[in-house]
Amino acid sequence: MEAPSAPRVDDRAARSSARRTALVADLDLRHAGRRTVTLRAEVQGRPGAPVVVVAGGISADRHAAASPVYPEKGWWDAQIGPGRPLDPDTHQILAMDWLGADGRLDGPVDSADQADALALVCDHLGVARLAAFVGSSYGAMTGLQFAARHGDRLDRLVAISGADRPHPYASALRAVQRQIVALGQRGGQPDAGLALARQLAMLTYRTPEEFAARFADPVAVVDGRARAASADYLEHCGARYAGRTTPEAFRCLSESIDLHRVDAAAVRTPTFLVAVVEDQLVPATLVADLARRLAGPVRYTAISSLTGHDAFLTEPDRIGAVLRAAFTGGPA
Amino acid sequence: MEAPSAPRVDDRAARSSARRTALVADLDLRHAGRRTVTLRAEVQGRPGAPVVVVAGGISADRHAAASPVYPEKGWWDAQIGPGRPLDPDTHQILAMDWLGADGRLDGPVDSADQADALALVCDHLGVARLAAFVGSSYGAMTGLQFAARHGDRLDRLVAISGADRPHPYASALRAVQRQIVALGQRGGQPDAGLALARQLAMLTYRTPEEFAARFADPVAVVDGRARAASADYLEHCGARYAGRTTPEAFRCLSESIDLHRVDAAAVRTPTFLVAVVEDQLVPATLVADLARRLAGPVRYTAISSLTGHDAFLTEPDRIGAVLRAAFTGGPA
Repeated sequence: MEAPSAPRVDDRAARSSARRTALVADLDLRHAGRRTVTLRAEVQGRPGAPVVVVAGGISADRHAAASPVYPEKGWWDAQIGPGRPLDPDTHQILAMDWLGADGRLDGPVDSADQADALALVCDHLGVARLAAFVGSSYGAMTGLQFAARHGDRLDRLVAISGADRPHPYASALRAVQRQIVALGQRGGQPDAGLALARQLAMLTYRTPEEFAARFADPVAVVDGRARAASADYLEHCGARYAGRTTPEAFRCLSESIDLHRVDAAAVRTPTFLVAVVEDQLVPATLVADLARRLAGPVRYTAISSLTGHDAFLTEPDRIGAVLRAAFTGGPA
Repeated sequence: MEAPSAPRVDDRAARSSARRTALVADLDLRHAGRRTVTLRAEVQGRPGAPVVVVAGGISADRHAAASPVYPEKGWWDAQIGPGRPLDPDTHQILAMDWLGADGRLDGPVDSADQADALALVCDHLGVARLAAFVGSSYGAMTGLQFAARHGDRLDRLVAISGADRPHPYASALRAVQRQIVALGQRGGQPDAGLALARQLAMLTYRTPEEFAARFADPVAVVDGRARAASADYLEHCGARYAGRTTPEAFRCLSESIDLHRVDAAAVRTPTFLVAVVEDQLVPATLVADLARRLAGPVRYTAISSLTGHDAFLTEPDRIGAVLRAAFTGGPA
């Protein structure tokens, strides 16, 4: 029987590393034409290990997880770390800031542009092949585009809550969000508009069932106005988002989701598609339909979550099980 | 065999009549206190016939249907008219403008206030009893309140797509709509805010399935911006609504839906509850749950419609069948 050992922090730090990189590149954007853009990425994990790209929603960025070098919280700490499904002891985890997230692009950006930008980042880092692309939400769309456009560099794709096209109803809801932002800008209240658009976006990321469970209190009259039980929560979400995003960045990435289209027949990479039954933004039927049309080997699974589209962030155990299954090739 | 006869317009006009009325009254509003309000109503049908109240959504008004006296289109012409389920040859059809719809109330109005206002209108018209209250959406909520508060004056209630309380997710979506209106008002663009709020409301009145069927075209780039296939339709709906409603009226009635609560145990009137399976705003589960808690005789039916909450307007045949069943006592 082995004696319990203290965490081997020093040892781990020696085996792992993290670095950030930025490069300026000229890219031919699908709708906006040739632009000079700055691409920013972060890599953590054992140097020389196989590279896995992770990509999340439009508010995700290159800092996917905390590391000894960059200890601040990342957006996917639940899945990335020693002993977790994406382990920097065995893989290098690469993530990038979305093209357009800096708010400097005044034209539409497409998921194909994001895939091409990632290919440039890989070139820059000397990464010839990716062991996997694990994308959720907008990241799943970009992963599908990467497989369609750069499939010769990709061994495996895991696409969670994303499909080859947006749902028309979800596009209509995003169009309303962008109009809210524009209304705020025209009225000299850009942050208020952005925060309110985010409130609406949050509602689409979650589900009626979750709200029924969390916010069942009757609507109250406060200072002469009706105030729903969910108001504090939604206002907090909106204000926090407006504090870290610009109207321009939001518009650009929101439009990008709507412009997304992938030719399913061009995707030959082995792909694991994951849908959430309660997802209001990317209905499971859209993902199941895509599973029938991809040209390469496909596995498909649907999980159930009260938090709908946000399950990739809110259901670490279930998503972790999906990732382990994806990487072992075992049953979903 | 009878010879085909020309429409008996003169004969019908002689048997039918329509009149509009307005009264000024002092009402103790549940949240806003004692207020002097103007109540406006319209009645059509054979004088002396049993009276049926009809009430629709927050954008409905006292002019429910065209008549020889007031020939302009009403909001429920499909159900009201000679030979239609609600026939002015056999019933008098009474409808009122919602309290708050004139935009002059600066405090919250409640469905209980609407029910009390209707009771005053009935007093004013000399109507001691109602043969039926047929309410849809906000009208169903008000009908339930009328049954709870003035049940001794009501023989029968038909409540379509309404329940005893709002769904918390629907309340959150309405809160966003009211914030859009407020954003527009603060920025000096009250009509633009109101139109945009209506766009969002329309999305909640309809369904993802309808949008998938109607607006399947890919999102296009127009003048450098993403434009969804549904944009023309939604912008038209928003602008039309903003042209006939004020921000104050919208706020007041939107809040009223959220403040709505009925004590189901106080409803002893025979009630026919109708839900729409695809309704996103008033989920059928909410109506089915209410059916189990009403104190009087209850019939419940759920119909299916791609147009969700708007089915009471968009499915004349199915709603007509429901009304005939409700009035004959036959199966739903």
